[in-house]
Amino acid sequence: MKLTGNLLIGAEEVGATAGVMKALNPATNVEIEPAFAFGGSAEVDFAVQLADDAFDSYNATSLDERAAFLERIADGLDAIAPELAQRTSLETGLPAAQLEAETAKAATQFRQFATVVRQGRFRQAAIDPAQPERQPRARMDHRMQKIALGPVAVFGASNFPISYSVAGGDTASALAAGCPVIVKAHNAHPGASELMGRVIQQAVKDSGLHEGVFSLVRGGGNEIGAALVDHPLVKGVTFTGSEAGGMALFQRAQQRPEPIPVFTEMTSVNPTFVLPAALAARGGAIGDGFGERMLVNVGQACLKPAILLAVDGPGYIGLRQALIARVEAMHARTMLTPGIWTAYRENLERRKNAGAEPIAAGGKAQGAWDGQAALLEVDGARMLEDPSLSEEVFGPVALLVRVKDVEQLAEIAKQFRGQLSATMQIDADDYALAARLLPILERRTGRIVVNAFAHPQEVSYASIHGGPFPATSDSRFTSVGMTAIERFLRPVCYQGFPDELLPEALKHDNPRGIWRLIDGELSKD
Amino acid sequence: MKLTGNLLIGAEEVGATAGVMKALNPATNVEIEPAFAFGGSAEVDFAVQLADDAFDSYNATSLDERAAFLERIADGLDAIAPELAQRTSLETGLPAAQLEAETAKAATQFRQFATVVRQGRFRQAAIDPAQPERQPRARMDHRMQKIALGPVAVFGASNFPISYSVAGGDTASALAAGCPVIVKAHNAHPGASELMGRVIQQAVKDSGLHEGVFSLVRGGGNEIGAALVDHPLVKGVTFTGSEAGGMALFQRAQQRPEPIPVFTEMTSVNPTFVLPAALAARGGAIGDGFGERMLVNVGQACLKPAILLAVDGPGYIGLRQALIARVEAMHARTMLTPGIWTAYRENLERRKNAGAEPIAAGGKAQGAWDGQAALLEVDGARMLEDPSLSEEVFGPVALLVRVKDVEQLAEIAKQFRGQLSATMQIDADDYALAARLLPILERRTGRIVVNAFAHPQEVSYASIHGGPFPATSDSRFTSVGMTAIERFLRPVCYQGFPDELLPEALKHDNPRGIWRLIDGELSKD
Repeated sequence: MKLTGNLLIGAEEVGATAGVMKALNPATNVEIEPAFAFGGSAEVDFAVQLADDAFDSYNATSLDERAAFLERIADGLDAIAPELAQRTSLETGLPAAQLEAETAKAATQFRQFATVVRQGRFRQAAIDPAQPERQPRARMDHRMQKIALGPVAVFGASNFPISYSVAGGDTASALAAGCPVIVKAHNAHPGASELMGRVIQQAVKDSGLHEGVFSLVRGGGNEIGAALVDHPLVKGVTFTGSEAGGMALFQRAQQRPEPIPVFTEMTSVNPTFVLPAALAARGGAIGDGFGERMLVNVGQACLKPAILLAVDGPGYIGLRQALIARVEAMHARTMLTPGIWTAYRENLERRKNAGAEPIAAGGKAQGAWDGQAALLEVDGARMLEDPSLSEEVFGPVALLVRVKDVEQLAEIAKQFRGQLSATMQIDADDYALAARLLPILERRTGRIVVNAFAHPQEVSYASIHGGPFPATSDSRFTSVGMTAIERFLRPVCYQGFPDELLPEALKHDNPRGIWRLIDGELSKD
Repeated sequence: MKLTGNLLIGAEEVGATAGVMKALNPATNVEIEPAFAFGGSAEVDFAVQLADDAFDSYNATSLDERAAFLERIADGLDAIAPELAQRTSLETGLPAAQLEAETAKAATQFRQFATVVRQGRFRQAAIDPAQPERQPRARMDHRMQKIALGPVAVFGASNFPISYSVAGGDTASALAAGCPVIVKAHNAHPGASELMGRVIQQAVKDSGLHEGVFSLVRGGGNEIGAALVDHPLVKGVTFTGSEAGGMALFQRAQQRPEPIPVFTEMTSVNPTFVLPAALAARGGAIGDGFGERMLVNVGQACLKPAILLAVDGPGYIGLRQALIARVEAMHARTMLTPGIWTAYRENLERRKNAGAEPIAAGGKAQGAWDGQAALLEVDGARMLEDPSLSEEVFGPVALLVRVKDVEQLAEIAKQFRGQLSATMQIDADDYALAARLLPILERRTGRIVVNAFAHPQEVSYASIHGGPFPATSDSRFTSVGMTAIERFLRPVCYQGFPDELLPEALKHDNPRGIWRLIDGELSKD
């Protein structure tokens, strides 16, 4: 597929109106062809108007039509997987094999949402039949289903440039919900963005949908993002990235004349709590497993386990040594962007200045933007004194915390802000202590893992990639897993409707056997 | 039950720290005993700390325990129904019989939420079992349930002083979710608030729950509300009232260091669209029905049908005459507060100045705060020119819109901001036109009613009292109906857990037969 560098607005290609950019190969520090167009507010307005025009017909697609569209996107991604992985690798420094696997995951995600659509359960259809004889007054027939929120703006992440980007879970779940999507391409991987954008654009065409169902825009600076968030016809926003970036968009959207839902997934250190029996039994294995996970994607993962807390005692030294060995064995590898590399170095210094002692370092950097792995250690008392030690450093570093006792462990757990995940390493003898820790973790995290590490992320019905602030801006939702669709749905009640006017999921006959709540009881009738 | 005028903080009574107030009887314009205490930030902090202390144990109550608690509140409300109705009538000018019915409705609502709790479906339990053989990597066991958000602050309404106040749907659904509740009493009915607060306080005690599960605070000015919304341990807010008041709280909560979910239910004109065949067949009956509903509660209802749009043609004159007759037959009745009365008069003048012509008036005011009914008329072209005519006037007034043709009707429909409800009056010959109007209404309203009026509100599984902004601050939720609980729940995923540590709804055995999603399929196993 030839890259043109154009914006993709509906079925059209739109050239630069606000300058151009080229992608940087962070491994070689050299720019890559072609030039990519920047647009501005006018292009955003064009894309959003089209999305609004598309809304009614797209929201009204049958479950089968919509599912088939999502499957076409999945097929299109599969078809370009090698090409997409190659281009993305050039733009990000990530290995092509990993990116092919990420493409497969993204395609799977679209197929999973196609299944969710076909099941129809996302409509959460409920029917309270008329009760004409009820006293003191009759009840009319009430029926409820969830429909799409409206056009949604998606701001993807740089660190998983396929599965959290143009063709990522936000786009998949918003399209599944029935929302037209406008993606703001991330400038760290413009070629990858265009390739994925073309797949979706083609699927829109092949499915006979209104062209406004999908657009891909790109801009320099903040103008285009601001224009998207401010546009009165945009009814929802998703973002994956830094806390500062996410909160800027969030606050902006809340100050619109009409505030809109914004789901930002921002920051998490995914603390791992090692309880005494587990530590004594297998401290070395825990240190080794943690070390492996913290270094995945050069530590540039929202689910990177970044803080390892263990109660000092038998097993601690073994854990520490295994972790040191992992970090020292890590070759320096290219980070995603010069900006991320710079921030990593600065934050690492800040962490050291806060009293965290460097106890291991990986291989030295060769390329300009290579990230060198690091391991820091601190004691529990210091951790309690300085909450900044609980904050994220994006990159291949972790903090080992030598905790005095289980009371101190609970105190430190209470100090964490909201997290995407937390892990407990426990053996049977730790269960009583784990039960004490559990409510503390439930209040602070979206996912609690036992005897494994949070990363990689499962995409399933029960999986949650969310959590209290600042992990996300709204702990009631998730950006990964089948329930991610709920961010983009709103209920509508139809009261006293003739069957002819009811939507598919609420008609008297239910030939698809969609699960519906009839007078409070689930039924496929 | 003797009124003391104290704040109810946990199990304690707390006297005035920031002055006192007395209730006003708006019918006689005379103050009523006793004096009610105002508190300040210190009392808010006391109540919120207690709520936070109560959180873990209350969130962990079994389904049966929590349901029994909600039923105790219902029983307590029933027990004081006559006393509550009498006091509330004094404070609001609303008829005691209506307020007894409202008490019964509030009690029913607590019982309905007890049923929701017992069903356990609100947990939205999902289980994706381990797949150790899966390629390329094994899947761990993932389980998800929804838990309570945290302590919630409830700001009730003045217009339904029981079912939308201290013992209203917000309190019932938040308690059902497992959230401790701090209610800020509305100063328009302090005695009613105390009576309801005492019922809940007693139920907390009788259920053996932590006292912090419920508190009732009261203050003058905005200090106490601001302190509640700003408190770092408050994790959610609900509000029912004016757009200005709701948005002030909403914006404040979004600007906290940790933004929190705020659900405000604010303003709606609940437009009624009369299509040609229905108009011709039964214009008079529609005008009569509309006139009856617009005057319920002296027009002080969020679901008051406030704008009636009919395509000019056969039946229009009959509709107009029937509506005029209803309005003219309405005696002036006491409005809730002097402030509401004043705003009603001012907004009515503003409406007239915007070109709406007065065509009927009800009986003249006798008491100081009596609201005189009014009917205004305007043509469709003027309606399109001046969007202010689509805004709410709280009180016994409606606007009749003489629309030129069905195209103009659709144009006007598109001009409405978000609504709690909209109504279509249609006969079979109108279905094609209704189908055209439907997507316009779906995008703008939370409930669409055919051949009835939105008010009164049903409380059921399919009922929705929500809608796009400014009807509410988040169209994805409802404040009435069984799904109102979703505002206060957030998902937590438990990965790789031993059965011993799993919560009730996610354990291997499911003795209650709670509906759970097993690998994407609903099951009671």
